[in-house]
Amino acid sequence: MTLPKHVKIVEVGPRDGLQNEKADVDLDTKVELVERLADAGFANVEAASFVSPKWVPQMASSSEVMARIRRRPGTIYSALTPNMKGLEGAIAARVDEVVVFTAVTEAFTQRNTNCSIAESIARAAPVVRAAKDAGLRTRVALSTTMGCPYEGVPPVSAVVDVLERVADLGCDEFDIADTIGVGTPTRVVEVMEACARVVPVDRISAHFHDTYGMAVANVHAALQVGVSIVHSSVAGLGGCPYAKGATGNVATEDVLFLLHGLGIETGVDLDAVVDVGQWISAKLGRRCESRVGNALAAKRAAARGETTGEACAA
Amino acid sequence: MTLPKHVKIVEVGPRDGLQNEKADVDLDTKVELVERLADAGFANVEAASFVSPKWVPQMASSSEVMARIRRRPGTIYSALTPNMKGLEGAIAARVDEVVVFTAVTEAFTQRNTNCSIAESIARAAPVVRAAKDAGLRTRVALSTTMGCPYEGVPPVSAVVDVLERVADLGCDEFDIADTIGVGTPTRVVEVMEACARVVPVDRISAHFHDTYGMAVANVHAALQVGVSIVHSSVAGLGGCPYAKGATGNVATEDVLFLLHGLGIETGVDLDAVVDVGQWISAKLGRRCESRVGNALAAKRAAARGETTGEACAA
Repeated sequence: MTLPKHVKIVEVGPRDGLQNEKADVDLDTKVELVERLADAGFANVEAASFVSPKWVPQMASSSEVMARIRRRPGTIYSALTPNMKGLEGAIAARVDEVVVFTAVTEAFTQRNTNCSIAESIARAAPVVRAAKDAGLRTRVALSTTMGCPYEGVPPVSAVVDVLERVADLGCDEFDIADTIGVGTPTRVVEVMEACARVVPVDRISAHFHDTYGMAVANVHAALQVGVSIVHSSVAGLGGCPYAKGATGNVATEDVLFLLHGLGIETGVDLDAVVDVGQWISAKLGRRCESRVGNALAAKRAAARGETTGEACAA
Repeated sequence: MTLPKHVKIVEVGPRDGLQNEKADVDLDTKVELVERLADAGFANVEAASFVSPKWVPQMASSSEVMARIRRRPGTIYSALTPNMKGLEGAIAARVDEVVVFTAVTEAFTQRNTNCSIAESIARAAPVVRAAKDAGLRTRVALSTTMGCPYEGVPPVSAVVDVLERVADLGCDEFDIADTIGVGTPTRVVEVMEACARVVPVDRISAHFHDTYGMAVANVHAALQVGVSIVHSSVAGLGGCPYAKGATGNVATEDVLFLLHGLGIETGVDLDAVVDVGQWISAKLGRRCESRVGNALAAKRAAARGETTGEACAA
């Protein structure tokens, strides 16, 4: 197995995470979340979303968040910008990178953005062009690459087809998303290998949800293809709008444990991320969805003098 | 990637699972659990433990469980038997397979069983011999192969050394256990490849805990080496005595989702296991620790008419 020596983690908790949480999060908490994540060493934090507050009220304070955060040199702050109005907001807020999106299945694109895949790409094109003109980095996210809640598992050729069409936009990165978390490693390898024939593998990122507990295995599969950018969310913030009560984005702590265990550098301090995960979970009144976060928190509690339990076999 | 076409899952929930649950489980529930699991199609259910009730009170009713269950033809019922007295109980209860155990680190063996590795093997030897004489199948479990709570990560050579010593016992299966769930895939591949040079790979089983969320990825890694026996626990029953509040055995539902997604046959009905997982979790008053179980339960709830939520990007 050849694995990359270094992986860039894109911490998406403040955006993809909070956007899918029920609890309302105040501005101070959002600012603290972004700042603490950057301080933990992430090279990229998805911090905001410039979408209509009518559709995503959780992100209404994005401009304020971006205005208030202390910027850490070396961290790229990203924001979702589905249209030109969003891009204007992002530029005004001095984000470093904007994200546009489409999907590889028509039914999802229609229900998610009320247009066809072709229309969504046509909508994204001027946003990407204007962003590049403004000197910003750009990313394009492809949803439903491993499965669609309406169409099932799309053929790999459908992923390739959409990727070829968006490749012309000239984005810096291409996010291959498992929106509903149904992928398994063989599929991930097939999709990632096919994508790596269309765009350079070092511009491909793995954006996996952990709805079915496959995300860590899928990240490992993507690494084996040479993918070296991984999206994750502290404490597994976020949920799955297609399966209420199920888990959402793969937890950053779990991805860090995997990568560090494999001897891959990330530049991120796992202990600091565990702290952030425990803190934000308490703030939101939810259980931390990171197994690593919970295990390390339990170990810390034990080290503080609580019992460590009895022995067991195997 | 070459993967096995068929995998045997050893469902350990009624033993390794319940043994580590705080809640007291009545006899009727234990019997129903074992029966429903066998009915779901498992070829092997670890159903009992003939250990001193002084040490493991949760397993005190093992004889009664074995006496009461309806036996499904084709299912092997296993029990833990640390000594000759346990074996006598197991034989009287008509179990099909007995399990002895040791570990690959001295500190763990001392604390878990109050003896050295050499002594634990010497203790297991007559149990295995007598079990074979009685016509029973035999398994030996090696704890702490990926990490030890007291000694850290043992060298692969320590795993090989202990495996070579227990190989002489002539057991049918060798359980390579990640007792505290700290392994990552590269380590798993190293250990499994080394073990497969000592005993036939089709006699090696992967017994992984999901304490740090790595178990599904580690099972996938083991499959890539050719391992075709996997231990798991419905609903992720059990916990980790070394990190209270952390998860224990990898959830069966998650392993099934992985295997079926990879096109590997198991003979097990995932939907039936999800039912069992939801039922036993409710009985124990605990959250189901299977992400697949929770996601499929959420999908079912949605199909019954609850809202399926709003759309999201990526």
